[in-house]
Amino acid sequence: MDINAVISTYRAAINRHLESFLTMKEEEAARISPYVRELVANAKEYTLRGGKRLRPIFFIYGYKCLSAVDEEAIIDAAISIELMQSYLLIHDDIMDEDELRRGKPTFHVLYREKCEREFGQLKSARFGENMAIITGDLLESYGEEVLAGADFDARYVRKALCKYLEVVRNVGYGQILDVLSERRGTITADEVLMIHKLKTASYTIEGPLQIGAILAGAEESDLRVMSDYGIPLGIAFQIQDDILGMFGDEHRIGKPVGSDIREGKKTLLILHALEHCGDAERRFIEDKLGKRLTVDEIERVREIVIRTGSLDYSRGMVRANIEKAKEAMKNSDFRAEAKEFLINICDYIARREY
Amino acid sequence: MDINAVISTYRAAINRHLESFLTMKEEEAARISPYVRELVANAKEYTLRGGKRLRPIFFIYGYKCLSAVDEEAIIDAAISIELMQSYLLIHDDIMDEDELRRGKPTFHVLYREKCEREFGQLKSARFGENMAIITGDLLESYGEEVLAGADFDARYVRKALCKYLEVVRNVGYGQILDVLSERRGTITADEVLMIHKLKTASYTIEGPLQIGAILAGAEESDLRVMSDYGIPLGIAFQIQDDILGMFGDEHRIGKPVGSDIREGKKTLLILHALEHCGDAERRFIEDKLGKRLTVDEIERVREIVIRTGSLDYSRGMVRANIEKAKEAMKNSDFRAEAKEFLINICDYIARREY
Repeated sequence: MDINAVISTYRAAINRHLESFLTMKEEEAARISPYVRELVANAKEYTLRGGKRLRPIFFIYGYKCLSAVDEEAIIDAAISIELMQSYLLIHDDIMDEDELRRGKPTFHVLYREKCEREFGQLKSARFGENMAIITGDLLESYGEEVLAGADFDARYVRKALCKYLEVVRNVGYGQILDVLSERRGTITADEVLMIHKLKTASYTIEGPLQIGAILAGAEESDLRVMSDYGIPLGIAFQIQDDILGMFGDEHRIGKPVGSDIREGKKTLLILHALEHCGDAERRFIEDKLGKRLTVDEIERVREIVIRTGSLDYSRGMVRANIEKAKEAMKNSDFRAEAKEFLINICDYIARREY
Repeated sequence: MDINAVISTYRAAINRHLESFLTMKEEEAARISPYVRELVANAKEYTLRGGKRLRPIFFIYGYKCLSAVDEEAIIDAAISIELMQSYLLIHDDIMDEDELRRGKPTFHVLYREKCEREFGQLKSARFGENMAIITGDLLESYGEEVLAGADFDARYVRKALCKYLEVVRNVGYGQILDVLSERRGTITADEVLMIHKLKTASYTIEGPLQIGAILAGAEESDLRVMSDYGIPLGIAFQIQDDILGMFGDEHRIGKPVGSDIREGKKTLLILHALEHCGDAERRFIEDKLGKRLTVDEIERVREIVIRTGSLDYSRGMVRANIEKAKEAMKNSDFRAEAKEFLINICDYIARREY
């Protein structure tokens, strides 16, 4: 199985379905007002900027674990999770005061700048954030609309929606803990793991798999296997993200190296380093949390992370969780094609460089 | 029929169901973290602060137009629209930078103050808004969760959810126009009516009625009658709101008289006055838009509104729309009890003082 080819093919299909849905929404908005149309067009551009589309791919393969009947309908339904992602990113960007997303202005910055061009400086930041809050709210409802209208049995759709809303809720709960711990400045490894479980594992892998599977009529026992696979894989995904955020290639990961530290986020990688380094090093890292790092400072943090064994520790965590996920999938009785893909994608995630 | 008694009885039942749902969410959140529990408890307090609960009452009576079978289940489902209301208010308060809601701090102010007490002044406004954005998002998903889990046929639930999401979308579209026209400083009467149609009519009366009716198995023709009734009644409701905002009793309406003007909102009442007053008066009103008014200035605006016939014009619009709504309901073949209530509530809305 050429996993890159499979991913590329589905990614292209997902982008086509996303584009066609959002074009339909753009036309709907045009019937109300050219201003609303313009906003929906910007939401479309933002959503289509890029992204690996792993979430809808897991959604599709959740379905394929149990059925192969309706490929087009499941791709159509799978874009719901990408619309959720788009909504979360727009609201996250406001909260983190980020200016760039996938190399272009974040949504609130886009509308702040538009305001400054068209109406002047006065309250332009407020205007930008207001437009971004509404757009996020709209995309949240678009995602649910897609799923509510999906071409599957109404009982399955209803159950899938309940699971989808559970994911939205978990991400919200995780986000509360995240914002709070950043402001408070203290966090324990247990809390970090809880946030990973709520934010990443739930909505990156476990949730999408389960929602897709429910549309194929999954039983509780099927969903449990997907948790046994999806939770460790999600944790591995997040730790790999933390490693890339400190050691990755800025251009490939699409954000500055060290941005977790700038946002005051203590990743497991950094927490482990803080526990195992000397006092002067600890003061240095603690002092840098919430600040922008110079190239030399990033280099110093990297050295500390390597010397304390934190990089090796995190890589070990990635490997152990990947093995756990694979094992759960191997022992399942899902359809062979889906099993093969879901086992292969574990290594893809462990090895990814962006 | 004693309409006040009927409304009070349903309001109490709705508050009970809301409280019990949000207590259940609080317990769910407690299993994650005491911080998340505290936030959900605050969201519960905010939602239960008050409010006329007219939206869930219309939801219930939409159902009762066609069926009387399951009173408890429909009240359970009807709180979904009040959770939507709560989500919209929390996000609106951020956008309008309002400090008070129903006599207490708005949600972002609550968390801004909490931040200042516990973590200090630094970025406390950002923290408050972030918590309020997430809480609004959560309440949006709670509302949909209630409806997705409602104890009705899955096909009806799915259709009801599609309608519910249409309402969320319409309110979002209306909100875009609203924020934009406030910042731009110009708006036409047609645009004001479009915003009323999208924001108020859709989610105050027409939408709730239709969602409730769908849960009783409504046909398209039933939904059309509900539009013929709900749209004019919603417009009457909004114009009455505009009148109360300028001539009402501050304590009863729960916000300062003249707050539309302070927010830079041109209501139909004000637009009509601007079209029919002299140049000096026009300059006076235009100058005051976006500013806080003194008691004397409010008195002057009131005089202009009365002298130009704008108050009479608006009252006439309320009456005409109320008659249109009643007529549509009289001609329907809905259940007699529901018809009687829905005809009576028109006068209740036209006469309300808060």
